[in-house]
This record gives sequence, structure tokens and C-alpha cells, in this order.
Amino acid sequence: MMNGVTNPANRAVLLLSCPDVRGIVAEVSHFIFAYNGNILYSDQHTDSETDTFFMRVEWDLEGFRIARDRIRAAFEPIAEKFSMDWRIEFSAHIPRIAIFVSRLDHCLYDLLLRAREGELPCEIVMIVSNHDALAPVAQYFGVPFHVVPVGAGTKDAAEAGALELLREQGIDLVILARYMQVLGDAFVREFRNRIINIHHSFLPAFVGAKPYHQAFERGVKIIGATSHYVTPELDQGPIIEQDVVRISHRDAVSDLVRKGKNLEKIVLSRAVRLHLEYRILIFGNKTVVFG
Amino acid sequence: MMNGVTNPANRAVLLLSCPDVRGIVAEVSHFIFAYNGNILYSDQHTDSETDTFFMRVEWDLEGFRIARDRIRAAFEPIAEKFSMDWRIEFSAHIPRIAIFVSRLDHCLYDLLLRAREGELPCEIVMIVSNHDALAPVAQYFGVPFHVVPVGAGTKDAAEAGALELLREQGIDLVILARYMQVLGDAFVREFRNRIINIHHSFLPAFVGAKPYHQAFERGVKIIGATSHYVTPELDQGPIIEQDVVRISHRDAVSDLVRKGKNLEKIVLSRAVRLHLEYRILIFGNKTVVFG
Amino acid sequence: MMNGVTNPANRAVLLLSCPDVRGIVAEVSHFIFAYNGNILYSDQHTDSETDTFFMRVEWDLEGFRIARDRIRAAFEPIAEKFSMDWRIEFSAHIPRIAIFVSRLDHCLYDLLLRAREGELPCEIVMIVSNHDALAPVAQYFGVPFHVVPVGAGTKDAAEAGALELLREQGIDLVILARYMQVLGDAFVREFRNRIINIHHSFLPAFVGAKPYHQAFERGVKIIGATSHYVTPELDQGPIIEQDVVRISHRDAVSDLVRKGKNLEKIVLSRAVRLHLEYRILIFGNKTVVFG
Amino acid sequence: MMNGVTNPANRAVLLLSCPDVRGIVAEVSHFIFAYNGNILYSDQHTDSETDTFFMRVEWDLEGFRIARDRIRAAFEPIAEKFSMDWRIEFSAHIPRIAIFVSRLDHCLYDLLLRAREGELPCEIVMIVSNHDALAPVAQYFGVPFHVVPVGAGTKDAAEAGALELLREQGIDLVILARYMQVLGDAFVREFRNRIINIHHSFLPAFVGAKPYHQAFERGVKIIGATSHYVTPELDQGPIIEQDVVRISHRDAVSDLVRKGKNLEKIVLSRAVRLHLEYRILIFGNKTVVFG
Repeated sequence: MMNGVTNPANRAVLLLSCPDVRGIVAEVSHFIFAYNGNILYSDQHTDSETDTFFMRVEWDLEGFRIARDRIRAAFEPIAEKFSMDWRIEFSAHIPRIAIFVSRLDHCLYDLLLRAREGELPCEIVMIVSNHDALAPVAQYFGVPFHVVPVGAGTKDAAEAGALELLREQGIDLVILARYMQVLGDAFVREFRNRIINIHHSFLPAFVGAKPYHQAFERGVKIIGATSHYVTPELDQGPIIEQDVVRISHRDAVSDLVRKGKNLEKIVLSRAVRLHLEYRILIFGNKTVVFG
Repeated sequence: MMNGVTNPANRAVLLLSCPDVRGIVAEVSHFIFAYNGNILYSDQHTDSETDTFFMRVEWDLEGFRIARDRIRAAFEPIAEKFSMDWRIEFSAHIPRIAIFVSRLDHCLYDLLLRAREGELPCEIVMIVSNHDALAPVAQYFGVPFHVVPVGAGTKDAAEAGALELLREQGIDLVILARYMQVLGDAFVREFRNRIINIHHSFLPAFVGAKPYHQAFERGVKIIGATSHYVTPELDQGPIIEQDVVRISHRDAVSDLVRKGKNLEKIVLSRAVRLHLEYRILIFGNKTVVFG
Repeated sequence: MMNGVTNPANRAVLLLSCPDVRGIVAEVSHFIFAYNGNILYSDQHTDSETDTFFMRVEWDLEGFRIARDRIRAAFEPIAEKFSMDWRIEFSAHIPRIAIFVSRLDHCLYDLLLRAREGELPCEIVMIVSNHDALAPVAQYFGVPFHVVPVGAGTKDAAEAGALELLREQGIDLVILARYMQVLGDAFVREFRNRIINIHHSFLPAFVGAKPYHQAFERGVKIIGATSHYVTPELDQGPIIEQDVVRISHRDAVSDLVRKGKNLEKIVLSRAVRLHLEYRILIFGNKTVVFG
Repeated sequence: MMNGVTNPANRAVLLLSCPDVRGIVAEVSHFIFAYNGNILYSDQHTDSETDTFFMRVEWDLEGFRIARDRIRAAFEPIAEKFSMDWRIEFSAHIPRIAIFVSRLDHCLYDLLLRAREGELPCEIVMIVSNHDALAPVAQYFGVPFHVVPVGAGTKDAAEAGALELLREQGIDLVILARYMQVLGDAFVREFRNRIINIHHSFLPAFVGAKPYHQAFERGVKIIGATSHYVTPELDQGPIIEQDVVRISHRDAVSDLVRKGKNLEKIVLSRAVRLHLEYRILIFGNKTVVFG
């Protein structure tokens, strides 16, 4: 109740998936009600092909009768009963972000400005790059900037160094904001489901390098951008968000690049926001997004 | 559970709104679970300005331990406890539709074809018109066609006659498919929240007559269509669905009409489908649409 | 001049492409002016990669000082001077259309209704199908319906028979309105650049069979439809028009099919209209569309 | 010819409108050809209601046989012959821009970044504000920042001061980038057709203050943004560009503000780019945009 006056910094979000049986909603909502929680949002979905049930519940912790650090333990029996794959997140924890960039600055500026305006509930802890080109941007926004050069034969060492940085700083999410390098398997495994990339095409069309050139060659009438979680296979991870814009024969590749930049920024920031608000459940190679 | 194999013809939908307090979701979901119902979809929303809670729950009646005709009575105590404005609908009842038209046939064909293909779960019981121009369409689809001429001084009588027809046939929903007449208050009151109109503009822009001409005059770069419930004030009712299409200086009024027809059909059929699936809650002059 | 009162049935359209040199526009517009023609629309485009110039000019033949059947000969010297690939079309000729269908009727109804309403300047001369399922639709609209069964081992003969029909009737354009067969090379060659197909995906994503299933499997957030000229390689021909619609995890394959139908109809009819108005120039495997 | 290798800094653009008669295109294109110009783009439009002809021609000045400062005089006789309203612009002149802001920075950042990346062919000469809140942004980008306080009774003097600044610096275009003040008539008259505003609604819906609040109250399902030339009547000027985004009942006013920001940036920058490339002709209260 009184959603409008609750404290956004004092909420819990339960995300779960499990085989679909009767009574899940009843039990979960009773759990929250029994301890005096107020459900703010509740969404559910059933995948009818696999009879899998998905749920996201967000509730106000004001007056909740279990201390935050004991909530997970209290919920454990219900999770076991229904064989849930689950997690509970708290808005009191501000997610810590690392942004990886190369030389293009449009997505970086966009993320930094949105974070500063409060659109993205997170702390941008560091910017990592294989160049120093964007160091001045980091400096202007007061974010530490780390150059991790990636050369022939040094990629593994470079990624190991980057990983060490991320561990030290307790990074929750890595954003590849037009980072032009492919991450190695070790990196991807350690940050499984916690690396978001923006690919400048409407996937699965135009996988790989130079998608705007590919789109121009094929003569499509619409181009797109796709934000997805990174998996070891290039551009094959679960899609979070996509959007498109119309083009015509008058548009040269440079026009596609220009029009695409708008898309890239919007699609990436939407995906990051959905992730930070714990609205995404990954299911096989797909996502359930409770918008 | 087993959403994929449930019988769509044996479901119940509960729609409710009430002051937002703790425990509503828990109590409603427990009610369904206690009688062995399987929740297929559940959506909720809280309007933070007025602290009003909205909920839509759809469940499978297979194995439900209360007979269909006693479910409403069984739920009554919960509704009273939370001061709910509520209703329960059953998919076993096929909504009975009357479509009102004048001379334009594109929305009429669209609705008839979608109904026949199973996109719209309803029975189109009659077509009512102030002209006989579209009688052959009705005949082709095997739907009774009624001409109710609307002339100077005969409008009240005409509408009374139409109302009588609707009552006789137990009509649940009236669709104004580019019906070029304004309905009187008596008619609108009797079918309150059960008349859906398509207006060929992006409301609230271009209320009233000839919106494409108005749009052309104003020089907008995008035109739209709006489907809404009819209230006594012209084009002011709760909006259900809208969509738009881009235009340019090259488009004459006739091009706007042509481009707009696509919108009108799509927007109207989406709105009708949402209504027929009981996905719309009306709240003041707005709608909550659980899509 | 006086575009608004010119006779749409008395116009000429010149479509040309040639190496880009100085003076083409001047010479072409002088040709039309010198014989007292009034240019109604003129569009041009230069492909900067190949220095190829494209132009479309539409003019009013009222008062034009060359008889219609001698215009091509009169223009020939200019075409030769600039090494043009060119053609002149006259609105007095109503294009003759054959629509190929299988069992799905939504695109067929859409084309028939638009043609009847005057949105598509053409005559639908015949409907060809490998089934008799849609014969009643043809009958309702008064269009001859031909069943050309396609079975194992009979495909070549069937297509030869269909070709014979098209030749007899002087068919200008073949529309594959969800025709579920792949046409053979002989057919495609004879109607080169005169067969328009609608593919139910956002090409080049999801080439081939069951694109909605492919889209569902990949977990995309947007689906599309693509209209293109048919070439011997499946789904690889020059793209004329595309459009998209948003989907979510809530949409089953059947919802994709339903949402996609709207797209298919709109994208196909737009492409057909562009073709019928002689607005498309094919260039390699791409199109220049003067919209 | 050889559009791809021409020098973008050495082009001319002719914009004209006049009564529609035979021979305009022929004469204009002959003028350019006769002096050895190469037409790069040519667009035309006829308004059929008023028989008014519009044309935009862009040509390469490399090898053109008239010096730039004598081209206008050379064209004058043709302009007189057809009673043209016309102007010729040269890409060698870099338009000088003043951006007016209040406290919101998203459009300002967007314009500054796009200008720096070369998307907007202009020089941003100054930023003018009624607050000093955004001075640090100006400093970061190295653009002079002027505070012109607007208080009760000081508005006329403030605007006179601002006008003086604009005159001194030879400003070509004023951009109101969410400038929250209404400009006086004297200002608007002096910069007639040279002030571009972004209004945060889909005009003509929601004119005036707090359009996102108005949209929320009305319960629309789509919101928009509109860029237009400023005229003395608030939000009534010729529309240059519009775009929209879908919303739902879940979106609070703050969500509309957030979603709308993306639109505002994109729509404003598109309009500015169209203006800077001399693609807009104003016709009554409408625009012809040669995109």
C-alpha cells in the first residue's frame, strides 16, 4: 500500500523460476503478507512449452518483520518445496558498474549522464579501455579510468588484469559500451549473466563485424540495435532489448552509423536499467523481461 | 500449471480494484489455490496518486472445487473485506457483438475476418447501419444486417429501436466501426463502458469531424488513430489503444486517409481483443490495460 | 502545373539509371518542357560508390506534343547519349495482376479489398493456387480462380501450365501472397523483377521455413515482415519494404503469427503499390524506392 | 557527377517556391548545367491546393563558371521570370548557433556532442541561459556562456540584451533546448524562421505548460515530442519533426519525463540538422522537408 510514499531504497525483489504447479503465487504472496510486507509489483509468466513458471515480486521492507539479512533463509523452505531457481535482491545495495569502451564515446556519455540524472540506479565505479582516448571523459565525470592494452599475445594477461580490478572493486555488472574486443571465455564465465553488450544490428541479422556495412550491402529498409548478455559465442547471448529505425537508399553507411548511434544508446540504457531493477530472468538462451 | 494444455473455454477472469492495503494478493491467490484452481496469468498495478490497487487474475477451472455459478458468491466476502469494485467473467460465455457502421467498410471487413479466423473470441450477432450500403458484406459473412435510418428528428426513435434490438439479442459489446453518427446519452448510458469507438486521430489532437483534414492543415509529421470507450462527451472517453504512422509534405489528405485506414483497423481490433479478453479496467477517465 | 486537376490516367513515368555525369537532369527536363509536358514529380539519387545516377520523372501528357506511342522513340537519342538503362511507363495502361496463394487468406483479402477501393491501381486478373481452399474468396470478388496442383514430380509441369496462363492473360506482375511453394528458375527468369513475395520475417534474419518459430526460439523482442522481388535464391532478392512490431516473452508462436499477419498485409500492399506506381528501380540486389 | 569525392565545403543549395508553371525544372537545371555545375541532389514538390511549386537543388561548385559571390545575381532573372521566393546558401558558410537553456541539460549535452562529432554542420558560438546552472557544461565544451536573468519586469530588457549578443556574434540560428521562457514578439520577429524549439508533446496535443502531466491525466498510450519554428503564438509554429514512444498505465509522470527525454533529444537534433542542411521550406504554417 501507499506505493507512492514508500522508500525506494528499502525494497526487496524476489526473482524465481520453477516447474509450474498449483499454489506458487498463493504461497509466495502469503509469505510476504505474513511478515507484514506490502507487495508493490508482482509479475508472473508461464512458459507453456516447458511448463516453467517465472515470477518477480517486489515489496516494501518498511515494517517487514524479518531483518534483511535473514530473509533469504526464511524463504529457503518455500524455494525448496517448489524446486525454485531463485534469488532475492535488495534496493539498499547500489550495484557497482564497470563500463568497457574503446574509442567511441556516445554510449559512454549516455550512460554517465543517465546515471548522474538518476535514471540508472547504480554507481559507475570504473571505466576500462584498451585505449586512453576517452580518459578525458572519465575525468570530467570523476570516474577512475583504467587502460588495459590488448595486443597480440597479451590478451589473456590483459583480461586477467581487468578481472582482478573488477574483483577488487566488487563489480556487479560489466557494460560493453561499444567495446571493440571479444572477451575470452574465462572472463565471460566469471561474469556469467552479468555482462551486457550492445550490438549495432537487429540480431540475429548481421552478426559479427561491421554490421552497418552488412546492412548497407543487403539493402535493408530498417536497421536495428540489440542489447544482450554476453556468452562465449559471439552475438549469440540472450537478447534483452532491441529497437529499430527506418532507412532508405539515400542513406550511406555513414548515415546508418549516425542513425544507429541513437538506437545504440537507447537500447543499451534500457537494457541496463532493466537489469539494475532486477526485471530480467534468463531462461535457456532467452529472457523473460518484466517491464 | 500446464498452461499449454488447459482448455481456453474453461477459464475464469477476476478483475478488481480497491484501496491499496496489505494482503490483497495473498488473499486472492489463496482463494483460488484453496479450491484447487491453477492461476494462469496474474497482473497487478497500484495507482500511486490515489493509492488504488488493480488486479487481474485468470485461472483454469478444470478441477476447481466450486461450480461456476457459485464462484461469485464464494468470492463475495473477500470483495467486501477489501471494498473491491470487481467482476468475474467466464471464457465459457462467448461475448455477443453488434457492429455499427455507415458506408466505410475497411474496419467492418477487418473485424469480420479476424472473428472468423479466431483472433477475436466473440460472436458477431448483428451489423447495424444508417445505410444499406454494406448489406452485401453482412450477407457474405452470414451476419444479420439492420438498417436504422437516422434522419432529422428521428434520431431518438432510431436509437430507441436500435437499443431494443441489442436488448433482444443480449448484446455485450457495441463496436462503432467508423459509424459516422454521435450516439445519444440514453444509448451511451445503457451501454456504459461497453461501446468501443475508433477515432481517426491521435487523441486528444483533432477531436471531432474530419481529423485527417485537421492534421493536414496543421502540418503534423505523424498521424494516429485512437480506440476508446464512448462517453457522452465526444471523443473524450477512456483511451484503450493508440498507434501512429509517419507522413510527409508529399501526402495529400487522400494519402492520410489511406495510411490511416491501416491504423484504424489495427488499433480498433487490438482494443476489441483486449476488451474481449477482459484485460481492461476503467479508472476515472483512464484505462489500466493488462496486456 | 495544376497538379491537382491533372488526369491521373494520362501520365508518363520515365525511370532511368546511368553513369553520373553533368547535364542529365537538364537534358531530361528540357526534353519534357520542349514538348510542352508538365513535370509532376521528379526524384533523383546518385549512388556514390559506383557513381550511378538514378532518376524518376512523372509528367502530365495533357498537351504533350508527341503522341504516346512515339514518346519512346523520341527519347531514344538522349538515352543513348547518356548510356541509360531506362523505360517509360504510361498510367493509361492498367497493370494486370496474378495473385498466387495457398491456404492463408489474409493477404489475399487485403489485396482484393485495396484494389477494389482504388488503393492499388491495377486489375487483379486471376488467382492461382495449389489448393481450392480459397476459391470462395475469388468467387465473392468475381476473380477467376485457377488450381494448379503441385505434387511430387509434377512441379515443372504445373509451373509450365501456370506460365501459360500468365502469358495468355498478359500478366504484368505476380504477387506471392503467402504462396507456400518455391518457384522454379524458369518461372523466375521469365518474370524477372516482376514477382513480389512477402516473407514473414525481418530479412536477412530467419530465412526459409517457419520464421516465426525461428524468431520465437531466438528470443527476439521485435518481429518483422519483408517484401522483396523474387530471385532464384530463396529469400535473397532485392528488398522493397520492411516493417516490424514489438513482441515480448508473453507472446507464444501463435501470437507472433497473429501480430505478424498485420505486418505481412501492410508491407506487401505497400510494396505492390510502389511497384504499380513505377517508384522502384532495381540496382544490383538492392532497390532505389522513390516514395 | 562523382558525388562521392566532391568537397562538401564547396556546394550551393538553391531553395525556391513559386506558382507552378511548366518549365521551372528545365530552366533551373539548365542554369546549373550551363555554367558547368554538377547537381548532387534535386527535390521538388507541388502543393496541389495552391498550385505552388517547391524545389531544392544542391550542386557542386567545383568548376562552376560563376564566382560564388556573383551566383545570386546571375540567378536573379530566372527567379523574377517565375516570381520565385528563393535563396541560395553555400556550404562554405558554417552556420553560427546560439543555444538557449534553463536548467535541464539533456538536450544541451546532446547538441554539443553531436556538433563535436560532426553530425551537425555548425559552430556553437554561445550558450544563453536565465540561470548559471549549466555554466560548467559550457565550460567543459569550451563554449562561452551568458546568463541573461529573466525576472518580473526585466524580460524586455533581458531579451534586448540577448538580441544584442546575437547580433554581435552574427548568429544564424537560435535553438531553444528546453528553454523554459516564452520569447517576446520583438525577438521572434527579428529571428523569424530562425528559432527552433522542442516541445515535449505530440503537438497539437498538450500545448503549453507541463505536457507530460497533461498526457498522464488524459491517459494516452503514446507520448511524443515536436520540434517547430517559433512564432508569436505559443507552440503554434510550423512543425519540422515529431516522434513518439509508447507508454502504459505503469508509467508515472516521472517515467513519461524519462522516456520523453530520449524523444526530445532525437527530435530536436533531427530538426536542427535538417535546418542546417537547408532542407526545410516554410509554407504558410507548414513545412516542406526534403529529407
